[in-house]
Amino acid sequence: MTEPYELSATDAAARFDAGSLTVEALVASCIARIEAREDAVRAWKHFDRDAALAQARALDRGPKRGPIHGIPFGAKDIIDTATMPTGYGSPIYEGHQPAIDAPCVALSLQSGGVLMGKTVSTEFASRHPGATRNPHNPAHTPGGSSSGSGAAVADKMVPFAFGTQTGGSVIRPAAFCGCIGYKPTYGLISAAGVKENTRSFDTVGLYARTLDDIALFRAGVLAVDHEPLAPCSVSGLRIGFCRTMFWDRASEATHKVLESAAETLARAGAAVSDLTLEGPFDGYEDLGKTVTGFEFPRALTFERTHHPEKLSEELFEKRLKAGLEIDFETYQSALEKLAACRCWLADAFAGYDAILTPSAPDEAPEGLGYTGDPCFNILATWTYTPAVTLPTSTGPKGLPIGVQLMGPHGQDLRLLAIAKAAFPVLWEGV
Amino acid sequence: MTEPYELSATDAAARFDAGSLTVEALVASCIARIEAREDAVRAWKHFDRDAALAQARALDRGPKRGPIHGIPFGAKDIIDTATMPTGYGSPIYEGHQPAIDAPCVALSLQSGGVLMGKTVSTEFASRHPGATRNPHNPAHTPGGSSSGSGAAVADKMVPFAFGTQTGGSVIRPAAFCGCIGYKPTYGLISAAGVKENTRSFDTVGLYARTLDDIALFRAGVLAVDHEPLAPCSVSGLRIGFCRTMFWDRASEATHKVLESAAETLARAGAAVSDLTLEGPFDGYEDLGKTVTGFEFPRALTFERTHHPEKLSEELFEKRLKAGLEIDFETYQSALEKLAACRCWLADAFAGYDAILTPSAPDEAPEGLGYTGDPCFNILATWTYTPAVTLPTSTGPKGLPIGVQLMGPHGQDLRLLAIAKAAFPVLWEGV
Repeated sequence: MTEPYELSATDAAARFDAGSLTVEALVASCIARIEAREDAVRAWKHFDRDAALAQARALDRGPKRGPIHGIPFGAKDIIDTATMPTGYGSPIYEGHQPAIDAPCVALSLQSGGVLMGKTVSTEFASRHPGATRNPHNPAHTPGGSSSGSGAAVADKMVPFAFGTQTGGSVIRPAAFCGCIGYKPTYGLISAAGVKENTRSFDTVGLYARTLDDIALFRAGVLAVDHEPLAPCSVSGLRIGFCRTMFWDRASEATHKVLESAAETLARAGAAVSDLTLEGPFDGYEDLGKTVTGFEFPRALTFERTHHPEKLSEELFEKRLKAGLEIDFETYQSALEKLAACRCWLADAFAGYDAILTPSAPDEAPEGLGYTGDPCFNILATWTYTPAVTLPTSTGPKGLPIGVQLMGPHGQDLRLLAIAKAAFPVLWEGV
Repeated sequence: MTEPYELSATDAAARFDAGSLTVEALVASCIARIEAREDAVRAWKHFDRDAALAQARALDRGPKRGPIHGIPFGAKDIIDTATMPTGYGSPIYEGHQPAIDAPCVALSLQSGGVLMGKTVSTEFASRHPGATRNPHNPAHTPGGSSSGSGAAVADKMVPFAFGTQTGGSVIRPAAFCGCIGYKPTYGLISAAGVKENTRSFDTVGLYARTLDDIALFRAGVLAVDHEPLAPCSVSGLRIGFCRTMFWDRASEATHKVLESAAETLARAGAAVSDLTLEGPFDGYEDLGKTVTGFEFPRALTFERTHHPEKLSEELFEKRLKAGLEIDFETYQSALEKLAACRCWLADAFAGYDAILTPSAPDEAPEGLGYTGDPCFNILATWTYTPAVTLPTSTGPKGLPIGVQLMGPHGQDLRLLAIAKAAFPVLWEGV
């Protein structure tokens, strides 16, 4: 018998509608799962079982509030919440209590979601890790910066969680932990009430375990009508296989998974062809590093000037000080070149329905100190295009390997529909 | 003898360097000016003379901190400040105390600025007015939403103030009150810690009384090296005179000021030609209203759901409820059409160094209930291009009329240099 915590949100919602499941029963099941697994996974910075149960009972007593009525979710702890402390992954904010919920949380609550707690973030969504471990092997990183969200959803503690991505902070933890991560078109979900890292790149993203759930969560957080994803067939899709300039950083296992994915999609009738990033993408990684280098220390001015001793040495010495050395003209030039990359990619998408590319260089690295390389995520993040990672495979260490699909700017629902068609075709059932 | 409060920031900085003025003397002079004029103007939501003097004395004791060392500034009260309450123009937030300074404030403080207080904003930077009056005639609006900032700088209470613009909220108050308002390229100054209105449009802007001061303030808030504006001559400039689709909304006086400005620039050697907005600009005003209609009620979800009774009826009934009726496809389509407008304007700028256009339809309207029509400001705001208004003229009611210059995306310093060259040519000396 399936425990409620194992259900997809879409299935749970159908059971609510049919009267065969209560919100309280689902929430209680998720609580039990969290309590059973949290010692090993450490996904939560703040978790309040009584508050969650109280929300659940109130929802059971009232009318259906919206598309995600009764669905438990976690919010990365760099997102403000009015009823729970918000620490931004930093000792500076230990016990800090925001006055209001960030719009993405407030909209999820208005749409009926149940806020279960705050998930662990790295320090200010940067590099310095939190306590979370990979649910498949606690000796390995869950990835970052949305470490707790990726781990909690993959480990079936909650069906939904919020993450944020400035480099690879949504997609990478999903790939390492083995769930679906969705990085929307830049700006789709408001980043108000989310601690700013790099305003030119910061994107609020979603975690779930099915693509229908991603679409449901999206409708809830945008407060728009929920419509099921449009039917889509892999046959006839035009897929650009983009190894990117970082292919050499990927492991043999990742190479195999991606090459095999391209072949599998072609066998299923897709027109798969190689896509090589050209021209404006020369020096792409450095362009983005310049932008984040310039913006991040300015976003953290208050913390730099009031609490330098509470910043990690890694952050203060390596990132903030270095970023302040970047001159404005270099920054401005990088912004302009990235704008040209966006135009180039928009033109390239005329020939493709989706782009296939790795989600991460390899399985999750061993150790908790290093959350992994975001190199395969920056293409979507910095070009503002939507991306989704699918947990299709397992590597030689027994950890998940994902494949990433990207779509054109603003075509998020089409990308999710394509991913829903591709997922069963690509899934290796391991 | 010139009182210190009358000095430009640039002149005050030179006197600090020469040892002929102390920060304390400048701040004390601004305090005296505020105390003399505040009953009439009501520019300040929060003003703390002792805190300002304490900051001033500390700066006099220490080394030069940055480009705006010792310069007093005001921050619109939708911008978070750690040492002063921040009310967002709403009774919901009466007495609300943010934990930290917004990056734009923190950077200004780090660069040596003296935070004098919080200036009056309309309700959530929308329409419902605050208490501020036009410094030239208290029976007239100062404009909005940055009502207090425009009034305070025009009335020489402070050399600098922050505003924000989603429609016309920086440029219009500057035009109505008679100072310089600068709306940068979208995204140039971080909007973190600024209450979100419409994330696709919200832009932090600056007020000052000279263009050199705008450049100085800009360097301070960006924490970049300050270089004087490059010399520029009006002769040879290519100016596009853009009456926009709203020309019929402008008064006869505004028509005369703008036609005269175009002729004056041509006489000074500029190549002035008409620029007509075409193609993608059909229905432009409605496109932006759709975007702000969709985003604004979502940004205010917490306030809508927790404190509806404390929202003005105007805001709650007319704007928030109506905005929630806009469907996602309409919103998405409006975003795409606005992107096309940005491309069209970028192409048009190949033929122009700057665009000349009205700053507002007329002098400031009589009464305090209506802050005026932003129609002449939305071209720059929604296309993300920099704009500056210059207080060149006075209308038949004895109130200021400004002219607006716009530049290409990202070319803010060039626009400021052009404006500095054009201002003395255009100034009617009234």
